[in-house]
Amino acid sequence: MLGTILHAPGDVRCVHLPEPEILAPTDAIIRLSASCVCGSDLWPYRGLQDIGAPMAMGHEYCGVVLEIGAAVKNVKVGDFVVGSFVLSDNSCPHCKHGFQSSCEQRAFMTGAQAQIARIPLADGTLVATPTHPDEDLIPSLLAVSDVLGTGWYAADAARVQAGSTVVVVGDGAVGLMGVLAAKQKGAERIIIMSRHKTRQDLALDYGATDIVSERGDDGVTRIKALTQRIGADAVLECVGTQQSMTQALQVARPGSMIGYVGVPHGVQFDGANLFFTQVGMLGGPAPVRRFLPHLMDLVLSRKINPGKVFDLELPLQDVAEGYKAMDERRAIKTLLRV
Amino acid sequence: MLGTILHAPGDVRCVHLPEPEILAPTDAIIRLSASCVCGSDLWPYRGLQDIGAPMAMGHEYCGVVLEIGAAVKNVKVGDFVVGSFVLSDNSCPHCKHGFQSSCEQRAFMTGAQAQIARIPLADGTLVATPTHPDEDLIPSLLAVSDVLGTGWYAADAARVQAGSTVVVVGDGAVGLMGVLAAKQKGAERIIIMSRHKTRQDLALDYGATDIVSERGDDGVTRIKALTQRIGADAVLECVGTQQSMTQALQVARPGSMIGYVGVPHGVQFDGANLFFTQVGMLGGPAPVRRFLPHLMDLVLSRKINPGKVFDLELPLQDVAEGYKAMDERRAIKTLLRV
Repeated sequence: MLGTILHAPGDVRCVHLPEPEILAPTDAIIRLSASCVCGSDLWPYRGLQDIGAPMAMGHEYCGVVLEIGAAVKNVKVGDFVVGSFVLSDNSCPHCKHGFQSSCEQRAFMTGAQAQIARIPLADGTLVATPTHPDEDLIPSLLAVSDVLGTGWYAADAARVQAGSTVVVVGDGAVGLMGVLAAKQKGAERIIIMSRHKTRQDLALDYGATDIVSERGDDGVTRIKALTQRIGADAVLECVGTQQSMTQALQVARPGSMIGYVGVPHGVQFDGANLFFTQVGMLGGPAPVRRFLPHLMDLVLSRKINPGKVFDLELPLQDVAEGYKAMDERRAIKTLLRV
Repeated sequence: MLGTILHAPGDVRCVHLPEPEILAPTDAIIRLSASCVCGSDLWPYRGLQDIGAPMAMGHEYCGVVLEIGAAVKNVKVGDFVVGSFVLSDNSCPHCKHGFQSSCEQRAFMTGAQAQIARIPLADGTLVATPTHPDEDLIPSLLAVSDVLGTGWYAADAARVQAGSTVVVVGDGAVGLMGVLAAKQKGAERIIIMSRHKTRQDLALDYGATDIVSERGDDGVTRIKALTQRIGADAVLECVGTQQSMTQALQVARPGSMIGYVGVPHGVQFDGANLFFTQVGMLGGPAPVRRFLPHLMDLVLSRKINPGKVFDLELPLQDVAEGYKAMDERRAIKTLLRV
């Protein structure tokens, strides 16, 4: 089968690999319906995260179950399934509290930029659809696996409510999904910080009410003006740099929450500053499993269309171009036909 | 009148001062019914916070209104009032969101370790009792002004709910009030980290179910054992050092909240560590004004007795001994008779 290996920074290749096999009785094997490239894949691609040995890439997935281990009960061969990018047993205390991304057995999915993939902890990780979905829904169901689930978690962690004024920091695919999530949760005003026309357009399509293209102090000034100097009720931080986190803190009103889902790279917080800013924070890898049933329903009933975030579609063979286009910001997010 | 001045680290004195006067039409003048020493007063007393010039001390207060400015409408001469240690207008957007401690006009009370004090922003800061309270309730009403209000905020920010497992880091007066607050909010299990017998006893009296006297890794191990390795649903951080904050992070389960009310001194957070720990945080100076009516009701109806936290009572003249006893941990909290 074909699969994707990152050999070194900038060197990602679609290659022939042995088909994955059941290794544990809790595994399932799925044939992917589609795959995609994540913003977080760019960290090692750009050399900003050490990989050591060559690494099988891809953690977003949906597809049809080919085989299950002896212990798997919740999905069966032939089911169409979507799973979280975080593997979880969905039964440990952290899972029961809705934080499956901190499962006691937590592991992160790899090897999903491929035709076939092994899904460990299948019972706790996968959710099947009632029937096989229409083909045109595949991109949106794929999006649920991580990018939508992560944007949704940002809004959830930031406690977006009906009537909220929300600021989204970051116009990558996750930020755009954050806009969609805020809209679904009834936010009245959704301000996205974005400097790119195509992303601005998609943000408006997903429900953004205001675009702020300025950054730094100018961006803060604009947002303060848009919010009658109060700041936002909820901030979705979808980047993970010191600059983006500082922006988030500066536009959040006292007592608000920042939901931060961009993996922090080199970010430090000063305790006294956080204290007197009086802004709350909750972040981490998204517990997508908690949201899967609801988000799959929203997609299957065509109430949301997160799949529009894929603005480049390539065959798996051209995965290298898929990474390159995202790295150069020519594409928001690349869908890979497998 | 008599009042308290900190001249230099370790040098705090009760001295004769001119009586405060109305300076702005929004001011009120009150005769204090009692005053007290706060744990935060020890930071400058210990030389850990630069004061520059000699400083009028004291920010916790309750008493009878002697005079009001022309614009004051909510309290009248003769009223018994309690106020927050943070002065606020209680009408700006942040106040309306319940974060009066980040009021656009925020200022911190000073000069309350005295017989008479000026209260700026009286309408937004003070709450009057229906009638003058019984004398024995004065310590508890005084406690509402800061120490109880702050412990309450820690529990509120940490989202303590009925059935919660709560850890309180810090057995100072605020930590003990955190225990009381957690109990009132219906926490099922309240674990306090404490190594001092008198504080342990008071914690048990206020509703603590478990005492952990170990610190560092041993303390974390104990708490993990007490919580079936899960960690706490809510953590109240009531100290403000790197060590105490690290303890708080280590005993909080993923998805839980830390309410941190100890003013951070030299505390730093690593973004990536916070992210993967997946613990939420909300802190800051307590918006006591939000809680005043409810907490005053609880005291006046004798449902709670926060005044027991005062285990040393001295005349104002002996304020220096009051500081010294707290500094040397001979006293939890000193009440000053004025």
